Amino acid sequence: MCELLAMSANVPTDICFSFTGLIQRGGRTGPHKDGWGIGLYEGNACRLFHDPNPGAWSEVARLIQDYSIKSLITIAHIRKANRGKVCLANTHPFARELWGASWVFAHNGQLKGIKQFPLKYYQPVGTTDSEHAFCWLMDQIRRKYPRRPKNNKVLYRFIKNLAFEIDEMGVFNFMLSDSNHLYVYCSSRMCWLTRRHPFGMARLIDTGKKIDFRKLTTPKDIVTVIASRELTDNETWNKMKRGEFAVFRDGDPVFR
Amino acid sequence: MCELLAMSANVPTDICFSFTGLIQRGGRTGPHKDGWGIGLYEGNACRLFHDPNPGAWSEVARLIQDYSIKSLITIAHIRKANRGKVCLANTHPFARELWGASWVFAHNGQLKGIKQFPLKYYQPVGTTDSEHAFCWLMDQIRRKYPRRPKNNKVLYRFIKNLAFEIDEMGVFNFMLSDSNHLYVYCSSRMCWLTRRHPFGMARLIDTGKKIDFRKLTTPKDIVTVIASRELTDNETWNKMKRGEFAVFRDGDPVFR
Repeated sequence: MCELLAMSANVPTDICFSFTGLIQRGGRTGPHKDGWGIGLYEGNACRLFHDPNPGAWSEVARLIQDYSIKSLITIAHIRKANRGKVCLANTHPFARELWGASWVFAHNGQLKGIKQFPLKYYQPVGTTDSEHAFCWLMDQIRRKYPRRPKNNKVLYRFIKNLAFEIDEMGVFNFMLSDSNHLYVYCSSRMCWLTRRHPFGMARLIDTGKKIDFRKLTTPKDIVTVIASRELTDNETWNKMKRGEFAVFRDGDPVFR
Repeated sequence: MCELLAMSANVPTDICFSFTGLIQRGGRTGPHKDGWGIGLYEGNACRLFHDPNPGAWSEVARLIQDYSIKSLITIAHIRKANRGKVCLANTHPFARELWGASWVFAHNGQLKGIKQFPLKYYQPVGTTDSEHAFCWLMDQIRRKYPRRPKNNKVLYRFIKNLAFEIDEMGVFNFMLSDSNHLYVYCSSRMCWLTRRHPFGMARLIDTGKKIDFRKLTTPKDIVTVIASRELTDNETWNKMKRGEFAVFRDGDPVFR
């Protein structure tokens, strides 16, 4: 299995703190040492960093922890390989263009038989079941909506139903973004919390590192962090139910 | 205008030395301070780093100079914006998937009227003429060859003719890779050199830094470096002619 982390915010926010907690699990406090990746949106483009090496000792991961790259939507993944060898092509998150925006996807779980799902517009570059599922998902959206539907809820519901369909093939915890929205599906395990005024202190489970968000925020800031496992031990994380789908925008859930 | 750098090699080779020369021109020894990017292939996937900040002082660029990431094909770009604002979406190289491989593209020049060229499969994420040209190029390849043609030369000639067609719109120096081949077109300015046994010393124009390739290579290594301007001052660079197209594979030109 793998671990996932995402963020949705209403002001450009860096993910240094949460990412520092997650990346320890890439070989130090967790077994997810088969590569890691992160996508940080800026407008409808996404800055991607991928590394097939263990995150806990990665030079590139150190940069992400130390260098503040601010974004409204971020998706990160650390991998424990079960399908597909350890290599760059199999390192999440995966990205494809649709409607002139980068779509970014990361997955936790296994999907048996997903490679039987036929693909048209998007082909996998690597050999994971995850990337095949992403390509199929993107294919379905593109076939149904050659142009972006004007009503966002139409799209939310369509993606939710696709999530249900793929979930039947195994375990399909995933995070997906179209550059405006963050789509999250809980197949077996996912939790989230929203930080907003009045801000407080947070402490990472994996390093004990503390941060005082009061010093780093304004009263208007809203930041939601979603993770496959809790990252801090002094805050209340909302556990998503199996089969629960949620859409976040500007730091808040907008559809559940 | 912008500057371009690419490498084709027959053994995984890092680009630290050449990149160190190029990136100085991103605000220090040259005016190309409107972002930079690099793509480093591993198999049919490509590791991308993009930064809309000046390369000469970029934390991410420092990592690329210091941390050896080895690859058979690399494409780098430093930008001086003339069309499209300075932002991540307008930062080269651009990437799209075709036939299950990442295709990566970087451009130097200006193309008037290119945005009138209709697009079908691929849409730009940013607003540059460069990305539009790339999307059109990819569209044409995909329309003509829904599957990869078995004869490589058929593809080489097809891309060459597309290059001629776009070149009529202005200046179209570009570098493109399908993960196996490196396609280079000289519209106004491009040069290259091949380093092979017996290796020697090289000295960067922009920093004076020297490297002794004898200490870093084996007699079988072949590495070709292509750049819009010479990077070293003690080696002989082959100047490409206007309208010249070349394909490199495993460090050697395979089609001209």
